[in-house]
Amino acid sequence: MRFQTLPGFRDFFPADLAVRRWIESAWHKAARNAGFEEIDGPVLEALELFTAKSGAEIAGQLYAFTDKGGREVALRPEMTPTLARMVAARGAGLPKPIKWYSVPEFYRYEKPQRGRLRAFFQWNVDVIGSDEPAADAEAIACACDALRLLGLERDDVVVRINDRRFVARELAGLDVAEADQADVLGLVDKLERDKSAATKLDDKLGARRADALRALCDAYPLQRAPELESVLNAARDLGVECELQPDFRIVRGLAYYTGPVWEIFARGPVLRAVAGGGRYDKLIAALGGPELPALGFGMGDVVLGELLAEKQLVPPTRRRVEVAVVAVTPELAGQARRLVAQLRSHGFAAEAPYGAPKLVKALRAADAAGATRAVIVGPEEWKDGKVVVRDLSSGDEKLVAATEVWRTLA
Amino acid sequence: MRFQTLPGFRDFFPADLAVRRWIESAWHKAARNAGFEEIDGPVLEALELFTAKSGAEIAGQLYAFTDKGGREVALRPEMTPTLARMVAARGAGLPKPIKWYSVPEFYRYEKPQRGRLRAFFQWNVDVIGSDEPAADAEAIACACDALRLLGLERDDVVVRINDRRFVARELAGLDVAEADQADVLGLVDKLERDKSAATKLDDKLGARRADALRALCDAYPLQRAPELESVLNAARDLGVECELQPDFRIVRGLAYYTGPVWEIFARGPVLRAVAGGGRYDKLIAALGGPELPALGFGMGDVVLGELLAEKQLVPPTRRRVEVAVVAVTPELAGQARRLVAQLRSHGFAAEAPYGAPKLVKALRAADAAGATRAVIVGPEEWKDGKVVVRDLSSGDEKLVAATEVWRTLA
Repeated sequence: MRFQTLPGFRDFFPADLAVRRWIESAWHKAARNAGFEEIDGPVLEALELFTAKSGAEIAGQLYAFTDKGGREVALRPEMTPTLARMVAARGAGLPKPIKWYSVPEFYRYEKPQRGRLRAFFQWNVDVIGSDEPAADAEAIACACDALRLLGLERDDVVVRINDRRFVARELAGLDVAEADQADVLGLVDKLERDKSAATKLDDKLGARRADALRALCDAYPLQRAPELESVLNAARDLGVECELQPDFRIVRGLAYYTGPVWEIFARGPVLRAVAGGGRYDKLIAALGGPELPALGFGMGDVVLGELLAEKQLVPPTRRRVEVAVVAVTPELAGQARRLVAQLRSHGFAAEAPYGAPKLVKALRAADAAGATRAVIVGPEEWKDGKVVVRDLSSGDEKLVAATEVWRTLA
Repeated sequence: MRFQTLPGFRDFFPADLAVRRWIESAWHKAARNAGFEEIDGPVLEALELFTAKSGAEIAGQLYAFTDKGGREVALRPEMTPTLARMVAARGAGLPKPIKWYSVPEFYRYEKPQRGRLRAFFQWNVDVIGSDEPAADAEAIACACDALRLLGLERDDVVVRINDRRFVARELAGLDVAEADQADVLGLVDKLERDKSAATKLDDKLGARRADALRALCDAYPLQRAPELESVLNAARDLGVECELQPDFRIVRGLAYYTGPVWEIFARGPVLRAVAGGGRYDKLIAALGGPELPALGFGMGDVVLGELLAEKQLVPPTRRRVEVAVVAVTPELAGQARRLVAQLRSHGFAAEAPYGAPKLVKALRAADAAGATRAVIVGPEEWKDGKVVVRDLSSGDEKLVAATEVWRTLA
């Protein structure tokens, strides 16, 4: 093979793309049913747009380069900075809340591995301009609705959720210094996966305070987090049927979260995150936009696609054509093409062979293309303006007027 | 404004993206009705994939850079090299002809101007593995079908078409040396737009031969190009209703075309090209694929979008929500959300306010969001398990059982 895809990038052959389009269609449907409008931004942006949010060190994980005009640019690794720019440009004139979603591809220069590629599609759903718990709940409901549309059942997934305001109150109550909070939350985040995290937490905070944090991870005192309880109630009202599990370990490292933070996991031998989001009330302004509370989530196509394939939820690939029109003699090929035009203008996926294959071969090709019916244009029938419509599974045939073929097939 | 898009790149706000999605939906529909399957490839490819087709000098027009692994890479400027790679990888096992289409975004580092951006979407339709004229005709018919679906009428566009085999015969008949043919065709291509091209053609070939070429441009001798006549006939059979105009000036500079070459122009004060394609029988093998005849075309979103806007064919933006559910008192907000969940699960785009606005304000917001109906949850009606469904244009109201709201709205 002379040429290959770059590591971590994918070719989408028809069967592959059909899966991606099916996932995307669930994303579109869930978002639109919840009243979100679709946006998109450029694949390439000024590098500064991303470093302004994540710091200069993010450049090392991006496809960043200098363009021919001397601009420092990068392939987008996420949507939020672009979203903030768009809100800054037009948000002042829009009714609030702004409810936007997108299905962009993102690019990260990371080591490719199972579930993590260098280019992946991600559904992004954001609410800008509301600080109501029902807004957080709607984002969770929308994410769960897409998973339901894809065939996942209530017991297949769990939403683990926490609230950064509650976390901040608990850490303040334990006298954890501001400067230590990021480290401490990083260790809390790792408690489940990394045994050394518990020891490190002891070292950092002493046993008493570390125990207090571990106790919060074991049993969430929801009565002390009323803002989270409001979100959970509104999510239930909005139809979320899967488990909503308050979990102190869900902190989502990113510094800009200010309220509810949550991840949706697929249950299984290991929990796999399929979506994550949270409230980021200060970020739009920090990125040059207006001061508006905001929240959002992302759901990628890679882990989700693996999961749906494992559960055999991926539907069979659609047929390439519905109807094949076949001329019995080369002289009738033009008539066959006219019937194809008739069928296409009535919305059928139809085709005729380009050349003049023998009937048996043409019908075999029609079957391979997925056609369920063939229209056979033979010289005897054609003299009377008729053609044969053949059911390719049963073999049943009927004679119909050529001008009425589309009606017969409808 | 702190951040801007890069020159030649676009933000797609909801109204902008709705136009793009509408154009894309016509592309998808026309391609599927004609039996094409959708593929996609990576946005980023090895630079060599593009220089192998177009020469090293193409790199100057690309977003090309060295990635962090030291690879020379470029944002894709077109689909054909990727297509050739995909055919090389899997084509041998697929039934022929292969009928593939795609709707990728392409990137070129060119001076942005009206109708030409640095990032644009393009519909690509290709047939691989057929040398029949009906295959060329089907591509033309498919392109025309998309334009028809977008509202353009037969007199709005013209397909200008030529055949590189005929061109080669004519040039050979005039004893134009192989080495001069590219230059000569370049001048023929410019005859219409650049007055100096006629003089240059005289200088290059002498008046007799230049006159002969100009005569071909004035009147196309279709009887001497039977391969083109077959394409035209098949295209008519396949339902192409707009003018099919043989034109010796349509040569499409690209060296790899080997048969029919064509462009679709929108008529108007100036002709504007909205699509172009042709047969490239040697290219797949030259790019490392199998020896398969092939043809295809591209249709971009930028000029087409301008044209459709000028002709006022762009449909109004879809409503963000269909139904708003509004609680009259804050205590009923949860019930309103449960009705929202009911409506969404039945496929309605529905929402409730996140907070507890007054009824008048909520109804105004519902109207602004495009809702045509509101479901009003009031304390008196709710005692009986009922809600009011209000038609927001007529003001008509009716009382219905809460559990049956979705049925009432269907």
